[in-house]
Parts: sequence; structure tokens; C-alpha cells
Amino acid sequence: MLDLLNQHRTIRKYTDQKIAPELLTELLETACKASNTGNMQVYSIVATTDNELKKQLSPAHFNQPMIIQAPVVLTFCADFNRFTKWCELRQADPGYDNFQSFIAAAIDALIAAQTFCIAAESVGLGICYLGTTTYNTREIIDTLKLPRLVVPVTTITVGYPDGISEQTDRLPLSAVVHHETYTGFTPEKIESLYSEKENSEFYKQFVLENGKETLAQVFTDIRYSRKNNEFFSEKFLQVLKEQGFLK
Amino acid sequence: MLDLLNQHRTIRKYTDQKIAPELLTELLETACKASNTGNMQVYSIVATTDNELKKQLSPAHFNQPMIIQAPVVLTFCADFNRFTKWCELRQADPGYDNFQSFIAAAIDALIAAQTFCIAAESVGLGICYLGTTTYNTREIIDTLKLPRLVVPVTTITVGYPDGISEQTDRLPLSAVVHHETYTGFTPEKIESLYSEKENSEFYKQFVLENGKETLAQVFTDIRYSRKNNEFFSEKFLQVLKEQGFLK
Repeated sequence: MLDLLNQHRTIRKYTDQKIAPELLTELLETACKASNTGNMQVYSIVATTDNELKKQLSPAHFNQPMIIQAPVVLTFCADFNRFTKWCELRQADPGYDNFQSFIAAAIDALIAAQTFCIAAESVGLGICYLGTTTYNTREIIDTLKLPRLVVPVTTITVGYPDGISEQTDRLPLSAVVHHETYTGFTPEKIESLYSEKENSEFYKQFVLENGKETLAQVFTDIRYSRKNNEFFSEKFLQVLKEQGFLK
Repeated sequence: MLDLLNQHRTIRKYTDQKIAPELLTELLETACKASNTGNMQVYSIVATTDNELKKQLSPAHFNQPMIIQAPVVLTFCADFNRFTKWCELRQADPGYDNFQSFIAAAIDALIAAQTFCIAAESVGLGICYLGTTTYNTREIIDTLKLPRLVVPVTTITVGYPDGISEQTDRLPLSAVVHHETYTGFTPEKIESLYSEKENSEFYKQFVLENGKETLAQVFTDIRYSRKNNEFFSEKFLQVLKEQGFLK
């Protein structure tokens, strides 16, 4: 089992093989066995396989080819809509139109998403997370007809791998794990944590190809720029208001 | 593997057996193999085993006994601190003091957390998620000395199970999974989705014990009340500002 988890790689190319509906159902059932907030299950999963709908979703994910190519696109949503409706039918006052409830529901959605991914990988499927989801929640909400108190949090494409990709590097564990309390980072510590990555031929080439001086600049200037982050922050906060999670 | 995931239960009581440091490291290494945003790994994990520190953490988790009793408490944090420091050392302008960056980092933290949980369960350990984390981020930040751009998102207690708890029920899959686009819920559909749960002896007893008329009221009046949700929403948004993720 640890072997399976340790072998994880993102799969962006899929064969033409469909996923049998019974298998997809089994994997979704397994995902729903995962921990969730107070057993309220305040998340939902939209499984999209229709080509026309996938085409409509594609621009929200900046036309990354996985959306069209993967047999199944799963959109995991924070969802207090169903729970709120149930409360209203049961003489109960549902107070879930707030930020804390959004966060609890987003946590539920993500725990279910990762459980689905591991379940899928265990039967030979490959997955890819699309971080574009939180940039373009408005467009996804419109395409998937998500009602009030439902906000997409992440998207996974899933299918049978067409070839095995390289496994990506990770920072040393001491970059991420702190013992007892948080240990701050000195410049020397940062140097030592990032030196292997920065000195690898792969990343040196990557920096050159992007026309930058340092690897960090590829992130700050191209991939995750301040300007984009601030633009998409405003947009996301606006959607949280529109969907009822923020006053 | 699916069996393991399908057998998941929350474990709240642990034996006195410690977790070998080598095993904990191995599980944390595995957790870090999971998908993350742009391979920036914008999360951190604080592993607390010291009794005095666990006592200090305990009130933030409303003194749930697992914090003291579990050999290891893991606090998973959204973390743009390290990445920002690296950018600053590399002539790059880090624009991660915003809400979108918090969400990306929180997603990373949660994917790592659930991967850790599954890894831990696969070697016979038991885990419990503490939803109290997002209520009391301020207190946790102070105890664990979390710097700017670090916010705790979830906490897991982990140890060897002292007995096997009952597996909790789940709603029918059709409560959670929508095909192609979102399907709204009619009152009749809500009735049918919740009827098995509401008519079980376990939940009937649970409603009685809580002195309420309906199961939904136990949630809205006692467990997740509007008043508490709104109070903790304000508190969390304030902490996001203080930690630099919201202007």
C-alpha cells in the first residue's frame, strides 16, 4: 500500500478505454467512506463524461487537454445546499451561509477527492488535479448548474494511463515537517533545502526555456504571478458571496 | 486496497504504544509524494509529541481527549512562508499574500493530510480528524509558533487503536454524486435520502438524548449552530488577515 502511494505520479494522457460505470460507482462509494465533518457529508461530486459538457468546461480549465481527453471529469464541491434543504424540512434553522461552513465543506470535498484518487490508482487508473478550479469557479458553476451554497473546490481528470510519466521531485522532508513547534527558516536553511532542485539539469533547462534568471522567477513571473493571484482572489471572494458563503 | 479504504473508521482511543520515529518519518515521506500545487509544496506539517505542548494545544481543540492520549498530533498548515522566503532570496517577487494563495495552500495541506491518514491506516494505525482546527487557528498559531503566511487547516491525532469502533453510516451515493451536471433536490428526494438514517434506532436515540425533536435540530441547535458558525467565521477571517492572506 505504501508502495502504491510512493509511486504516485500525475497522469495527463489517457488511452481511449472508458471506465466501466460499475467501477466508477465503486470508487465513488469508497471515496465517500472517508472522514467528513460531523458525518454531515457536506460535499458533492459532479461526474461529467458527456463530450459537449466537457467542451463547455474546458475554457474554465484554460483548455488543458486532459478535460477533453479523459473519459471522466470529476468536480468536487463544497456543498451545504442539500444539508440546508434537509434542515428546512425538519424545523431546524440552518446557519451555514458563512465562511466557516465553506471551509468545513471544502475540507470534506478535498478529503473525498484524495481518497478517490488513491482508490482509482489502486485499480490501475491515473489522475490529474486541476488547480484551475478555484480560478474559475464562476464559469464552472454556470456550466454544471451548481446552486446556492455549492462551490467547486477541485477537479480531477481520470482515465487509463497512456504511458507512465516521470515522478516529480520533492523537497527534503525537513522543508515540510516541523518537530513539536514550527522552526523558522534561515537563509542558509533555504539554500540547503532548494539546492538539489535548483542544481538539477532538469530545472536549469526549465529556467532557460522560460527565459528567466532563477527558478523562483518562473513561479513569480509566469506560473503564479502576483497579478493573477490578486485577480483570482477577488473573483473567488465574489463567488463565495454570490453562492451565499460570505456576507 | 479498496478494502482498506472501505473499512475506514475514526479511532479516538489509542493504546500506550508509541509510534517508532522511523515509521512516522516513512509515513510523512509518503504523504509528501501526493499531488500538490505546481510542485511548490505550499504546506507544512507540525508533528507534536511532547506532553506539555499537547496540553497547551488541548483547549484549542475543546479538550477532546485524543490530543493528550494520542502519541502523535499532526497539524497540517497552509504555508507560503518558506516559498516566499525562497523567492526573496532569488530576485523574485512573491505575490502570495492573498486569498487564492491561501486556498491553494490549504488544498495542498489537505491532500497531504488524507494521504498520511491512508498510509497510517495501511500499517495498522488509527486516525482522527479534528474539525476544531479552523475554529481556533489563533490559539494553535500561538502554541505552535506559526509565522506569517502559515495557517493551520486540519489536525490529525494518530496512534495504535485501542479497540475497533463502529463504522459510521453514509447517505446513499445519490445524495453526493451528480451525473453530468448538478441535479437539484426536491423535498421528496430529500425525504428518501435521509429516511434510512432518521429511522434508525441509533439516531432516534441520539435525538432523544439531545432533547431535540429532529435529527437536523441536533446539528443546527447543538453541534453546528448559526451563532457558533458566525462567531468562528469572523475569527477565522481575522486570522487570515493577521497571517497575511487577506487584505
